Amino acid sequence: MQKIFASIVTIGDELLIGQTIDTNSAWMAQRLNDAGIWVQRRVAVGDEKQAIIRALEEEGAASQIVLITGGLGPTADDITKPVLCEYFGGQLVQNEQALENVNRLVSRNGLPVLQRNLDQALVPDTATVLQNARGTAPGMWFEKNDVIYVSMPGVPFEMKGLMTDEVIPRLQQRFSTPELLHHTLITTGMGESFVAERIQAFEAALPAHIKLAYLPSYGLLKLRLTSITPDKLHAAEEMDAAFDKLRSLLADITVTDRDIPMGVMLGNLLKDKGLSVSTAESCTGGRIASQITAVSGSSAYFKGSVVSYANEVKMNVLGVAADTLETFGAVSEQTVRQMAEGALRLLKTDCVMAVSGIMGPDGGSAEKPVGTVWIAVGGPGNIRTMRYHFRYDRERNTEMTCVAAMNELRKWLVS
Amino acid sequence: MQKIFASIVTIGDELLIGQTIDTNSAWMAQRLNDAGIWVQRRVAVGDEKQAIIRALEEEGAASQIVLITGGLGPTADDITKPVLCEYFGGQLVQNEQALENVNRLVSRNGLPVLQRNLDQALVPDTATVLQNARGTAPGMWFEKNDVIYVSMPGVPFEMKGLMTDEVIPRLQQRFSTPELLHHTLITTGMGESFVAERIQAFEAALPAHIKLAYLPSYGLLKLRLTSITPDKLHAAEEMDAAFDKLRSLLADITVTDRDIPMGVMLGNLLKDKGLSVSTAESCTGGRIASQITAVSGSSAYFKGSVVSYANEVKMNVLGVAADTLETFGAVSEQTVRQMAEGALRLLKTDCVMAVSGIMGPDGGSAEKPVGTVWIAVGGPGNIRTMRYHFRYDRERNTEMTCVAAMNELRKWLVS
Repeated sequence: MQKIFASIVTIGDELLIGQTIDTNSAWMAQRLNDAGIWVQRRVAVGDEKQAIIRALEEEGAASQIVLITGGLGPTADDITKPVLCEYFGGQLVQNEQALENVNRLVSRNGLPVLQRNLDQALVPDTATVLQNARGTAPGMWFEKNDVIYVSMPGVPFEMKGLMTDEVIPRLQQRFSTPELLHHTLITTGMGESFVAERIQAFEAALPAHIKLAYLPSYGLLKLRLTSITPDKLHAAEEMDAAFDKLRSLLADITVTDRDIPMGVMLGNLLKDKGLSVSTAESCTGGRIASQITAVSGSSAYFKGSVVSYANEVKMNVLGVAADTLETFGAVSEQTVRQMAEGALRLLKTDCVMAVSGIMGPDGGSAEKPVGTVWIAVGGPGNIRTMRYHFRYDRERNTEMTCVAAMNELRKWLVS
Repeated sequence: MQKIFASIVTIGDELLIGQTIDTNSAWMAQRLNDAGIWVQRRVAVGDEKQAIIRALEEEGAASQIVLITGGLGPTADDITKPVLCEYFGGQLVQNEQALENVNRLVSRNGLPVLQRNLDQALVPDTATVLQNARGTAPGMWFEKNDVIYVSMPGVPFEMKGLMTDEVIPRLQQRFSTPELLHHTLITTGMGESFVAERIQAFEAALPAHIKLAYLPSYGLLKLRLTSITPDKLHAAEEMDAAFDKLRSLLADITVTDRDIPMGVMLGNLLKDKGLSVSTAESCTGGRIASQITAVSGSSAYFKGSVVSYANEVKMNVLGVAADTLETFGAVSEQTVRQMAEGALRLLKTDCVMAVSGIMGPDGGSAEKPVGTVWIAVGGPGNIRTMRYHFRYDRERNTEMTCVAAMNELRKWLVS
């Protein structure tokens, strides 16, 4: 059995001038991987004919599957469709089902249907049309020299629908793929090089078809084991054994043994224990709460938050003593403890996270430099406090504070 | 004067399996653009020697500048340095300044310095070393066949420091670049095709060296004018005239005439008017507050928020009447109005945004389907409410609710 290679080509000047962050490619790569298809290259090019054709040629020579997103909108800067029509031959014809879809979507909003909307239903007659229920631009499936090319719109919501409903099922039908397995362990509190040192013998003893990757991210370190083998029967068993070994070597620094966001990790733990949670946030400005509620079903354990950015909100809403703020300051063990106590009282939850810190670039002092953060976690009558010091920029300091607070509550919950 | 082309090459299996979203490339592309350098391709490849060499060859043949990130960590999966050493010739030698830096960074945390840390200070003797004050892996500058290759670590915080302090200044010294200007207008409430229809004549009349791009994003539409010309003298004047024209054509649907996040747009407006703001959030779970506080200096106008996810928090903290919740439900005009009034009372601000909705995938009904959102904005005694209906997934519905709330407050502020 042969490894199946794919390339992802994204089209759009906005990617090349940095106006848009490409989140599509990562999502597509995950889905392809789950289907046993190995993405070997991702290429972004501008809305420019020669650049698009060069990418189609190069990626078609390297991969069996080339997935293309972007450049299919109704405006003049979207040139992907005519270029594809030229590259794969044939001419533009009207697709009835796509036309119905355009009429439905545009008139749903009570708007007149413009010629440029109708043009969205024109497709090269060399393409198999993949209907896009979520938008006016249909997907297009081409084949040339035994390579499959699929063009999809760049709007993430539409691309995801087409991938899930059409592209992945068709690819799975076409190819017999090898078993591609990933296991991820997330650790914290130990640097990449020290973890590598501790598991050196384990890593050296891994079979050639199992790879270990180190992925540091915001104070966390993800360790990912990947196995690629045609031997589906033994792959899972072998991977489980390797992962168990890794887990036991790093048990003391493990946050979770699944590749999930911190909000999901914490939600699972709270659900298991049947506990409710709230937050009292100063420097993170609601970001911890927003990460918790990004999880569908979080209303089962999350009740609410007070974002107390101003000192008067810390006093008036959370009941932090004016004395405390005056004597110790807003970024102090005493303040963050009273914030936590206030949130527990007000929001009536079983446990809480409270944070107060200086995210930068301004606001630091010799005694409390930028990056100083106090965290309090716990429940009524049982609150722990801890100080962190992050040495990064505002965005990174804020994200690391969220990660640290959720990890500290995790430790409190399992202790 | 010649256009200067760059390629960005990112290295790491994590990009190809979708475990990491590539935010580096967008940031780098912005900085290069500001410096008048045109990014024509972005390529991501795995931690695999042949793939890296192929990318270096292809991009070196196409661009004068090739910027490389990733694969420089202290662990076994990081193979970029030996591959570069082989590709550019030479041998690995110890760099004294990089060594001092490694010792400083590792021992700062009270940790022993490992051999694999010391190895970070080894660099090919064919490279000019770019010192990295923020991490242990130095940057490396190579030249081959008149092409510049720069290798940087993939950690965004470290890459950004190297780009700002070393790479961009050196590139600017080396190249005489054309004038590259961008102006961006952000609109809302009108679809891409209808905007295109309205400005058709304007677009058709643009000179060849000014390009217009349509960038839809979460209920907003960004219209970006880009001018590339060696004629620095007239470029700014000509672009200003074109942009003024665009602005006047779309005045009724314009959110802002700068390419800034909604949180920055709203912050500027609040500062100008000397008004303070708070939020009362149900379905967005603190995300509006977190976008407002992502802006440095937001404490000048933002006081705090109540995230009232549970109905008891809506009642106990914000004072929403039990009757109201029972009669009209949590997602209703009446509830969101009382949430807004409660936040104004409790947090004592001049204006407020309140939101309550159903983000999905669960919780919808025939009467209130998933995506139904009520928004209230305004100040004491002067609150406006409006209903939205988004038709997307949880993440997208949530982000669109944040955008809509901030835009509604903007409209209230300027009315």
